[in-house]
Amino acid sequence: MIILGIDPGLASCGWAVIEAIKNDAPLKLKIKNCGVIKTPPSETLGKRLVIINLELEKIIQEFRPVVAAIEEIFFAKNVKTAITVSHARGAIVLTCAKMELRVCEFTPLQIKQALTGYGQADKSQVGFMVKNILKLKVLPKDDNTVDALAVGICLAHSYKNL
Amino acid sequence: MIILGIDPGLASCGWAVIEAIKNDAPLKLKIKNCGVIKTPPSETLGKRLVIINLELEKIIQEFRPVVAAIEEIFFAKNVKTAITVSHARGAIVLTCAKMELRVCEFTPLQIKQALTGYGQADKSQVGFMVKNILKLKVLPKDDNTVDALAVGICLAHSYKNL
Repeated sequence: MIILGIDPGLASCGWAVIEAIKNDAPLKLKIKNCGVIKTPPSETLGKRLVIINLELEKIIQEFRPVVAAIEEIFFAKNVKTAITVSHARGAIVLTCAKMELRVCEFTPLQIKQALTGYGQADKSQVGFMVKNILKLKVLPKDDNTVDALAVGICLAHSYKNL
Repeated sequence: MIILGIDPGLASCGWAVIEAIKNDAPLKLKIKNCGVIKTPPSETLGKRLVIINLELEKIIQEFRPVVAAIEEIFFAKNVKTAITVSHARGAIVLTCAKMELRVCEFTPLQIKQALTGYGQADKSQVGFMVKNILKLKVLPKDDNTVDALAVGICLAHSYKNL
């Protein structure tokens, strides 16, 4: 099964395509590609959402994932940020749903728990596990890309019908 | 010029198509159609955003508005509500921008100010002005539809290049 992991953001949206193979236990995960979609703050909200939409459509057309894993918004920190991320998230969920992907949402706590066994794990612990699980020589430099890999792995570990 | 006014919401999204004619002062506004897009809470976020997207696409194809007026989120009240509305808003702005409408955003204060001359006007005062300006015999029953008419009128009054 091909999974699309997404760390939603308006300025910077991480994405990762992971293949999950369940022929034999343990579950085998293979990274197909990953990256980050950036949009310029100088552009209108509409234009920025269209950039994200078109890039995601290309990724979905190329890799044909059947399910998308998207990080939920942790809204306790900053309302303005939450609203901005939610705009991007709405556009992302629409794009995935319209292309007939099943969309699964995970909280940061669920993601950390799935990867490290500890819901309060820090960024470096999550990064360490992403690198190990996917057998990467180096982690992608971009934090949003690492987070997209993490949510993709979280889905692979929790999904019942791989 | 044809204007699409939108009061964004996930469960209930108001819309209004208004024609603004500026041949002679004062500005003449004519309602073409209006309504509300409803999505069932039992559906997934993805499915609900697709419903809103498809309905808006139909409305845009039928009436060919060139500009969309969308209410901005007033986020002081409730963070959870703001996030839900922002999801819908992201999908709506993407839909309009992808269909090459210019998207203009207005705060509730700007809308009330434009319609009644008073930023703290209440619902009934705004409704009264919507009814008067558009010469309606009766106001639409749905509050979101009235708000969509209001934001559309606000744009018509503030737009420089009608």
